[in-house]
Amino acid sequence: MSSSELPAPTVLMARLRRDLEHVAGYGATASGGVSRTSFSGADRQVRAWLADECEQAGLALRTDGIGNVFMRLEAPGAPAGAPPVWAGSHLDSVPEGGRFDGALGSLAALEVLRRLAEEHVPLRRPVEAVVFADEEGNYHHLLGSTAVARGFAPNELGELRGRDGDQLVDALQAMGWDVGAATRTAVRPGDVHAYVELHIEQGSVLESAGARIGVVTAIVGMGGGHLEFRGRQDHAGTTPMPLRRDALRGAADLLVRLPEVARSVSENAVVTCGILHVEPGGANVVPGLARLQLDFRDPDRERILELEEAIVVAARDVADRHNLKVSYTRESITDPVPLNPRMQDLVATVAASQGMQTLRLPSGAGHDAQNVARLAPTGMIFVPSVEGRSHSPAELSTWEDIEAGANVLLAMVHALATD
Amino acid sequence: MSSSELPAPTVLMARLRRDLEHVAGYGATASGGVSRTSFSGADRQVRAWLADECEQAGLALRTDGIGNVFMRLEAPGAPAGAPPVWAGSHLDSVPEGGRFDGALGSLAALEVLRRLAEEHVPLRRPVEAVVFADEEGNYHHLLGSTAVARGFAPNELGELRGRDGDQLVDALQAMGWDVGAATRTAVRPGDVHAYVELHIEQGSVLESAGARIGVVTAIVGMGGGHLEFRGRQDHAGTTPMPLRRDALRGAADLLVRLPEVARSVSENAVVTCGILHVEPGGANVVPGLARLQLDFRDPDRERILELEEAIVVAARDVADRHNLKVSYTRESITDPVPLNPRMQDLVATVAASQGMQTLRLPSGAGHDAQNVARLAPTGMIFVPSVEGRSHSPAELSTWEDIEAGANVLLAMVHALATD
Repeated sequence: MSSSELPAPTVLMARLRRDLEHVAGYGATASGGVSRTSFSGADRQVRAWLADECEQAGLALRTDGIGNVFMRLEAPGAPAGAPPVWAGSHLDSVPEGGRFDGALGSLAALEVLRRLAEEHVPLRRPVEAVVFADEEGNYHHLLGSTAVARGFAPNELGELRGRDGDQLVDALQAMGWDVGAATRTAVRPGDVHAYVELHIEQGSVLESAGARIGVVTAIVGMGGGHLEFRGRQDHAGTTPMPLRRDALRGAADLLVRLPEVARSVSENAVVTCGILHVEPGGANVVPGLARLQLDFRDPDRERILELEEAIVVAARDVADRHNLKVSYTRESITDPVPLNPRMQDLVATVAASQGMQTLRLPSGAGHDAQNVARLAPTGMIFVPSVEGRSHSPAELSTWEDIEAGANVLLAMVHALATD
Repeated sequence: MSSSELPAPTVLMARLRRDLEHVAGYGATASGGVSRTSFSGADRQVRAWLADECEQAGLALRTDGIGNVFMRLEAPGAPAGAPPVWAGSHLDSVPEGGRFDGALGSLAALEVLRRLAEEHVPLRRPVEAVVFADEEGNYHHLLGSTAVARGFAPNELGELRGRDGDQLVDALQAMGWDVGAATRTAVRPGDVHAYVELHIEQGSVLESAGARIGVVTAIVGMGGGHLEFRGRQDHAGTTPMPLRRDALRGAADLLVRLPEVARSVSENAVVTCGILHVEPGGANVVPGLARLQLDFRDPDRERILELEEAIVVAARDVADRHNLKVSYTRESITDPVPLNPRMQDLVATVAASQGMQTLRLPSGAGHDAQNVARLAPTGMIFVPSVEGRSHSPAELSTWEDIEAGANVLLAMVHALATD
C-alpha cells in the first residue's frame, strides 16, 4: 500500500497557530519576545503543557536524561524495533528571543503526529516528534542533539556551566532527572530512519527571492572561543589616563577591528561578541580583566580556521598597543554539515507538488539537524523570516508561510514513514 | 590644662598591624585582595568583630539606620552634648579591592580611641571613631557619609539598587536594621567639632616626592552617569557584518575614543568605564543594547561639566556612525571640595613636629571627608601607596608609613579634643 493512493492529510492551521501563540506565553517578555532558556521555569511550564497535549492526543511521551523529549506515534503493523522517522526542533530560546525559532519546528512536528493519528494513516514505521534540549546553548551549543549524536562523558557533563554560572548537573537534578541517565543518551546510527526539521530562515534570503520554501543544502560551520585581556586594576580617580593598563580599552579596540578582520577572510565571514565580562566590575575601578565570548562563522571550514587565526593576530596587536596580556581559548569548531542530497530533493519535490516556490540555500545558523545528520539522512525546510530578524522579539513569519512549511513537513514525514 | 604638658601618647603599632591583618581576612580573595562590599557576609563579619573589640576596650558602639558605626570615648568632665571630635573612614571595599583603602583610617581611629582611653588622657570633648557605610558605592557613592551630611528621603532610598540589582532597603532589612531609621541619619552642622580621616593616597605623588605624610588640600570633583547605546538584536549567524546595528560595537568605538576626549578637556581629566552591561547577553546574538557606567573627574568643577559634554558629543557621533540610538543619564556631579585651611595647617604642624616630611596635594579619589566637610572643619592625612596601586589586591603601604600616619592622626585628635 502506498501513501500516494490516499488523500494527503494537511495540518489544522487553527490548532497549530493556537499552539504557537499559547507556547509564546511561556517566558513571554514585556517587549513581546520570549525568554525561555533551557531548564528555566518557563521551560518547565512548556514541558508540562507538552505532556498534557500528548496525553490528549494519545501519544506516548518520553524524556531522556539530558531533557530531550520524544513524542511517539506507533506504526501498528511495523516490525518491533523498526527505526522511527524523526521530525522536530527545540523549544528553548535565547534570552529575549523570538516566538518562532525552534517552536515552529517542534509544534509543527507535534501537529504532524496528531494529523497522522487522526487520519489513521497506515504507517510502515513509527514517527517521533523530537524536542531537543538546550539548542541555544545555555549550557552547551546544541546540547540535546549532541547528547543524541555522540553522548557526553560524566566528567564532561560535570564541567558544563550555564550563562549564569550554574552547573548543568545541578540544573538537571533540579528538573528531577537522573544525572547518570544524562550520560546514556547516545543513539546509534541506523536506529533512526530519517530526520526532518522545519525552521524559520532567520535571514532574509527567501524573502528577497520571493520563495516560500527553502531547501537547506548545508549548515554553516562555526567556531566558538573566548579572548581574555589582562591589564592592571587601578583606582579610577588617581590613575592618569596615559598610565592605565585598562583591559576593557583593549577589548574595545579589538571589537572595533572585528568587521575588518572578518572582511579580510571572506565576504561571508561573521564574528560576533554577544557576551563581554569585565572584572572587577566596580564603577570606580579601572578594569583589570575583560573577557570576550566570540562566535565566528563561515560556510567553508578552512575559512573558519583562518578567521580564528586573524582574530588572535588582531588581539595580540591590540594587547601590545595597550600594554596588556591576552590569551585565547578555543571552545569549539563545528564543521559545516552538507545535508543529504536525497532529502534535499524530497523537500523540493514535495514543496513543488504543493505549488510552492522553492530556493536552495545554506543555513547561516546552527541547528540540531547538523548533529542528527551523523545518525540518519537529514533534511531541513526553511520558511521566510520577515526582514530576516531573529534572536529578537521582532522575529516574525507569516501564518501563510508557516502553514506552507508545516504542510511540507507533514507530507515529507508521511512519505518517509510509508516508503 | 593643655595636652602639650603631658607626654604625647603614640599608637601601639603591633596591635594596629594585627588588626589590619586580621580585618583583611574578612572577604579575603584568592589573589590576596579583599572583596568586602557593603552589607555582604564579609561586612557582617567585620562589624561583629568591631563590636567585640569595642566591648573589650570599654567603648560604646552605636550603628545608625544606614549602617554607619560610631564608637565613642566619653570625656567625663565635658558638658552634656559637647560636639565630639570624629576620626574615621570606611571598612567596605570595592570588589577585588585592597587591604588598606578605608580599613587603615577606620582601624587607626579605633586605635586612637584605645590609646586615649588607656593613657587616661583628659579630654574636653568626646571622641568618636566613625566607620561610614558603603563608601565604595555598592548602592550609592559615599552612601553613609551622604546620609550623615544631608540624609535620604524614603522614596530616594527606595530607588537605590546595588551592583547585583538588589534593593538597598532589602539589604538594610537583611542586616537587621530599621529602614525607617535609615531616613533619620542626618547630623546638624555644629554637632561635630572636627573630622580627621587618615587614608592611603591611592596614587604615586607622595612616593615620587619622597614625602611620608600628605596634607590633603582638596578632594577632586567627579561626575557619574551612564550611556546607553541601542541597536538591533539579531542572529549572529544570519546577519551579515555590514547590516548589523551592533550596540556593543558602538560602545567599543566610544571606549576607544575616551582617552582623547579626556585629553581635549584637561591634562588632569580622567574617564573610566568600570561596568559594561550587554543585552541580551547570548553568545550567538548580536547585542541590541550596551550600557556603559562612566566615572569622570577633574579638580575643576567647570572642567567636569565640559568633560561630560565632550563624552556625550563623542557618543552621539559614534551612534550616528553605527546607526544606533544613544541616551545619556547623569547620575551625579560632585563638586570639588577644598578642605579647611586650619585643618591642613594642623596636619602639617603635627607631622613636622614628629619629624615627618610632608607634601600638600589634592585627592584624586572621593572620600567620606568631602561630605563631612559640610558639617565640620575637616582634614585628611595621606600616607604613600606603593607604586600608587589601589582598588586592587596589589594595594600596599609600608608599616613604617602606616605607623607615621596613625601617630599623626592620634596627635591631631588629641589636639582637637583638648583645644
